[in-house]
Amino acid sequence: MADGGTLKRNDEGIETALGILKQQFGERLQTGDSVREQHGHTTTWIENQWPDGVVFAQSTQEVSEIVKVCAAHRVPIIAFGTGTSLEGHVNAPIGGISIDLTQMDKVLEVNAGDLDCRVQPGVTREALNTYLRDQGLFFPIDPGANASLGGMAATRASGTNAVRYGTMKDNVLSLEAVMADGRIIRTASRARKSSAGYDLTRLLVGSEGTLGIITEITLRLQGIPEAISAARCSFPSVKAASETVMAVIQYGLPVARIELLDAQMVGAVNRYSKLDLPETPLLLLEFHGSDAGVVEQAETFGALAEENGGTGYEATATLEERNKLWQARHDAYWAMLQIRPGCTAVATDVCVPISRLADAVEAAEAKATEMGLQAPTVGHAGDGNFHATVLVDRDNADEMARAAKFVSWLNDLAISMEGTCTGEHGIGQGKRPYLVKELGAETIDVMGAIKRALDPDNIMNPGKILPA
Amino acid sequence: MADGGTLKRNDEGIETALGILKQQFGERLQTGDSVREQHGHTTTWIENQWPDGVVFAQSTQEVSEIVKVCAAHRVPIIAFGTGTSLEGHVNAPIGGISIDLTQMDKVLEVNAGDLDCRVQPGVTREALNTYLRDQGLFFPIDPGANASLGGMAATRASGTNAVRYGTMKDNVLSLEAVMADGRIIRTASRARKSSAGYDLTRLLVGSEGTLGIITEITLRLQGIPEAISAARCSFPSVKAASETVMAVIQYGLPVARIELLDAQMVGAVNRYSKLDLPETPLLLLEFHGSDAGVVEQAETFGALAEENGGTGYEATATLEERNKLWQARHDAYWAMLQIRPGCTAVATDVCVPISRLADAVEAAEAKATEMGLQAPTVGHAGDGNFHATVLVDRDNADEMARAAKFVSWLNDLAISMEGTCTGEHGIGQGKRPYLVKELGAETIDVMGAIKRALDPDNIMNPGKILPA
Repeated sequence: MADGGTLKRNDEGIETALGILKQQFGERLQTGDSVREQHGHTTTWIENQWPDGVVFAQSTQEVSEIVKVCAAHRVPIIAFGTGTSLEGHVNAPIGGISIDLTQMDKVLEVNAGDLDCRVQPGVTREALNTYLRDQGLFFPIDPGANASLGGMAATRASGTNAVRYGTMKDNVLSLEAVMADGRIIRTASRARKSSAGYDLTRLLVGSEGTLGIITEITLRLQGIPEAISAARCSFPSVKAASETVMAVIQYGLPVARIELLDAQMVGAVNRYSKLDLPETPLLLLEFHGSDAGVVEQAETFGALAEENGGTGYEATATLEERNKLWQARHDAYWAMLQIRPGCTAVATDVCVPISRLADAVEAAEAKATEMGLQAPTVGHAGDGNFHATVLVDRDNADEMARAAKFVSWLNDLAISMEGTCTGEHGIGQGKRPYLVKELGAETIDVMGAIKRALDPDNIMNPGKILPA
Repeated sequence: MADGGTLKRNDEGIETALGILKQQFGERLQTGDSVREQHGHTTTWIENQWPDGVVFAQSTQEVSEIVKVCAAHRVPIIAFGTGTSLEGHVNAPIGGISIDLTQMDKVLEVNAGDLDCRVQPGVTREALNTYLRDQGLFFPIDPGANASLGGMAATRASGTNAVRYGTMKDNVLSLEAVMADGRIIRTASRARKSSAGYDLTRLLVGSEGTLGIITEITLRLQGIPEAISAARCSFPSVKAASETVMAVIQYGLPVARIELLDAQMVGAVNRYSKLDLPETPLLLLEFHGSDAGVVEQAETFGALAEENGGTGYEATATLEERNKLWQARHDAYWAMLQIRPGCTAVATDVCVPISRLADAVEAAEAKATEMGLQAPTVGHAGDGNFHATVLVDRDNADEMARAAKFVSWLNDLAISMEGTCTGEHGIGQGKRPYLVKELGAETIDVMGAIKRALDPDNIMNPGKILPA
């Protein structure tokens, strides 16, 4: 599923480029197996495809120089942040040069008065938040993994609090990027809003390294709220939980997080985190606001939940209780893997209109059971985005085939419900056929025209997003 | 300033296209002077440039057919909504066909459970809000004029409540558009978030009709808040008012609107709306939330204002009082024109980081005075966007020249402050040189490459955004 399709490897160009880069970067070009493996490593079932070399860039100017060398010799370029993507984004299906951006990890500027900052792409979200804490500021996007901000921008990441703070598309003010010919551009000013020409910021956000390499990011920040509280509530069914979520959204309750765990996932979390939550669908919530505001939000939520059959509702403003609750959510991935020790997780990432969330989750649960698969589910319910993760034994070919069939079925289901095959992970390699199904051949043609205009030799992360 | 530059008029093609369109559309193709004048009419100082004919389209299929005829004969196509743009967007510098979309005015679908709807481009924001009211929903973007939603999307419009609800880029979920070859595309699913490929939605939002014609818009909606209240507060200086705005933003107070009027504008409003506000800088606010929430917001704002020298603070939750206050704001444009009856307004639209707002507004006031110009100012202060509007006598060449110089100076000032020459009006014709200054030639080259890839014959609204 992750081969290069009709892409062709350019051995001669790669060899020449490696020679030039070796001269320019010395020890900062590495071609050893372990480094190459790490940079073509996927955390999922997608097979690893190593680059031919890895350059550790330290400045925008260096990225530009590397791209110029690769452009001159038609060599693929793959940007690398932390390698936490789930769709084979850093794979090198026809080889090429991985540009490792982890050494570009400086916070360049924080403008507290404007609630913005400018960072290099290798800064991780946790590093940024540590840096900001003393100033009473935070960057809200939380995809779970401690991803680099460049990678998060490139995949249009989001996560648990997108329902309140949006996704990377909403929180990037401007980008600096190196284009396929090595030119350096800045996409926008630092103004909070703008009508100045084509929105190149949003075109690059989510372009998965296929149009340019992000070398600086200007981000919107938030003030740390006066008060944060958390809550949990159990429901007799996914439908009851989803109807509560719809009521919350329609009411306009500004929940910061509203996460759904299905019964199977709650069981896994209980065992892993030593909790005794009722093993029925669960909503976990977080409220941000003033002291009085979070109390009011929690009360309003409680009333909406009760109307929809919620039970065992508990709200807490103490840091310890809140951390315990959310730690359980953050550990859900590891908890789930313990259902079947040694298994591999096959990620899914569909997102549907919220009114279809219950139908989609329940259908996925039934389908998995019917296919003899285990697929516990967590969902960013306020966005209609959920992850039914299939637990498989990689060495069991039959099970792998069923898992692949399940993923395909689920993507098709979401598309049939006016949803998307990817709410936040991106298209990468495996989802390319679903992108066509979702948006139609004419829309993909338009994307292809843009790609060809900006990268005529298809050297920027080839084999991703667009059909090969 | 609004000529076609190096663009060339294609008389033969236009004549042929008009003949074909007459056959296809009969009376719905109009070529009379009054209709042409209306469709090439600008509300500003930019000279009018008429199209050669106007077709009143009634469906996406018809728009596609018109575009195919124009594409075959290389004839310019200009989409027309309500004609309220301020930067010459509907002008036809080298003639061509205006596609009037006002008859495509249906609300096609409202999904109350998902807080979204799908509309044709000719639906105006007021018509949509009237349609939605019974369902307890509203569409928040309010640029002042009763613009069409297609036009608002095309110019990335925003207005008074962008500080809370964002701009059109944040509130369009998906678009259907007719591209330069007549193909119809849909840019995204109806999911609330997506990582599915290039963000063509955001590429078309703000593209001012130069990449495609928007034929359907899927919009995010909001529930009408439980409570709305309004407030006003006077300040000794623009600086004091701006510092209050910064405190509000940093605090994270979710104000729905926070508008700045300078002393001159307050004077104009007093006379026009028969009010007796102190003639010093004024902030007008609106709070949306629960009953208790808006009271708390108003109190918090009052405290922040007082710390910054605010006086005469009044908050009100009664509908009548609130309407009176906001009516004064909405009438500011007419009030301002009455400062000098018969004058023409020269709009400006710079947006700067909020920490520079006071500097920018005060410098603009001083510069206008120095140049012997009157330029009362209103600002969407929470975004750093303000409109210093120069009042001129069109027949006074010297004054017109000074006004042009002022506008140029102000755009340059905003750019020097890391801001933009346009927060919400768009680039259109007159601001093209500033777009280059703002983002640099390399960035504009990338925009040009996209334009050429999607519209190789430059028939979609030629002479707008990009240098001719």
